[in-house]
Amino acid sequence: MNKIITIGREFGSGGREFGRRLAEELQIEYYDKEIVTEIAKHTSLSEEYVQQVVECKPHPLYPITIGQSMVFMENYANQQIQSVYQAQCEILHELAEKSDCVIVGRCADYILRDYHPCRIFVYADLSSRIRRCMERSAENEKLTEKEMKQKILAVDKNRAKYYEYYTGGKWGDKANYDLCINTSGLNIKKAVPVIAKMFR
Amino acid sequence: MNKIITIGREFGSGGREFGRRLAEELQIEYYDKEIVTEIAKHTSLSEEYVQQVVECKPHPLYPITIGQSMVFMENYANQQIQSVYQAQCEILHELAEKSDCVIVGRCADYILRDYHPCRIFVYADLSSRIRRCMERSAENEKLTEKEMKQKILAVDKNRAKYYEYYTGGKWGDKANYDLCINTSGLNIKKAVPVIAKMFR
Repeated sequence: MNKIITIGREFGSGGREFGRRLAEELQIEYYDKEIVTEIAKHTSLSEEYVQQVVECKPHPLYPITIGQSMVFMENYANQQIQSVYQAQCEILHELAEKSDCVIVGRCADYILRDYHPCRIFVYADLSSRIRRCMERSAENEKLTEKEMKQKILAVDKNRAKYYEYYTGGKWGDKANYDLCINTSGLNIKKAVPVIAKMFR
Repeated sequence: MNKIITIGREFGSGGREFGRRLAEELQIEYYDKEIVTEIAKHTSLSEEYVQQVVECKPHPLYPITIGQSMVFMENYANQQIQSVYQAQCEILHELAEKSDCVIVGRCADYILRDYHPCRIFVYADLSSRIRRCMERSAENEKLTEKEMKQKILAVDKNRAKYYEYYTGGKWGDKANYDLCINTSGLNIKKAVPVIAKMFR
C-alpha cells in the first residue's frame, strides 16, 4: 500500500507550504489544487464552480425563481454538489493507488481512511495567520487587518462545515489526526526536513 | 535561556514514556514525580497529600464538622492547596533556571510561559489507552476493561479541571501546544529519536 500523508490546515497557517515542502523533501507526489482541476474534468463542470463547491460557498449560478422551478433548481444544484463529492472520492482513490503522495485538504484523511494515511493538521494562532496572509496577499487584494481576520475566520468556518458535513467528524479536532503542528513562530522550511524523517 | 520542553498528556497515552525517552535522547534532565517530592519538601506536607492535591482529588485528611470549625478547616485546606501550587511554581522556575529539561505535567507549559517552552501534548484514542493501561497495570491492581476506562476518564477529568483552574486555558486544546502527537499505533521508542531532532 502506498504511503499517503494528508494535510488539514487552518487558513493562513502555512499548511500548503508545509505539505509542498514535505512532498519535495520525500520526493513524492503533491496534490492540492490539481484535484479541483481533475474534478472539473470528471464532472464537466467549470473549475470555478467546483472550487466554490469544495469551499462550501453558495453558488451564484442559478437565479432564484418561484414555485416548482426553484425546487427543480435546488435539486439540480444538490445533485451537482453530490457529483462533485463523488468525483473527489474517485480521484483521491486513484491518486492513492498511483503512488506515495501528500494531499492537502479535500477531506482526504477521511475519504482515504482505508489506506491508513498519516493525518497531519497544521494550525497557528490567529495573529500569526493574519500576519502571514497580509505578507502574502496580492497587490490587487490588499485587505485591512480587520478584513483579513474576517476572511480567515470565514474560510475556516466553511472548511469546518464542509468537513463535518461529509465526515461527521469535527474539523481540527486533534482526535482525528496523528500529528498537529502549530506553525506560530515556526520556520516551516527548517522544520519540514526533520518531520520528513518520520516518514522514511 | 535554557531549552524547556513541557509534556501534557492524556492518561494512558504514553506521555510519560515519551517525555522520558525524549530527555534521554537529548541527554537533558527529566522531571515528573520528582516535582511532587520537591513540593512536599518545600511545604512540609506529605508526598501522598501533595499527590492528591496536584491530581485534584478531594483530600480525606480533615473530618467535616459543623459551624465555625468547618469554615476554619475549609480555609486551612484551601491555604494548603494554594501553598502547594505556590511551591510548584517556585520549583518549576528553579528547574528551568538550572538546565535544559523535559517536564511532564504540572501546568509547566503555562507556569513557565516566559521561558517559551516547546509545549507538547501526547494523546491517543481511548481503546489504545485502555490497552496500554491494562498491559502495564500491576498484578495487584487488576481492573476490568470497564473499570480501567472509568479510571482513565476520571484521571483526565481531574487533570482538565486542575489545568483550567490554574491556567484559565482548556487542557488538551491544541491551541495551547506547539505539537500534539497521537500515540495510537505509534511506536514511541522509534518515534522519539526523530522528534528529538527538532530540538537540536
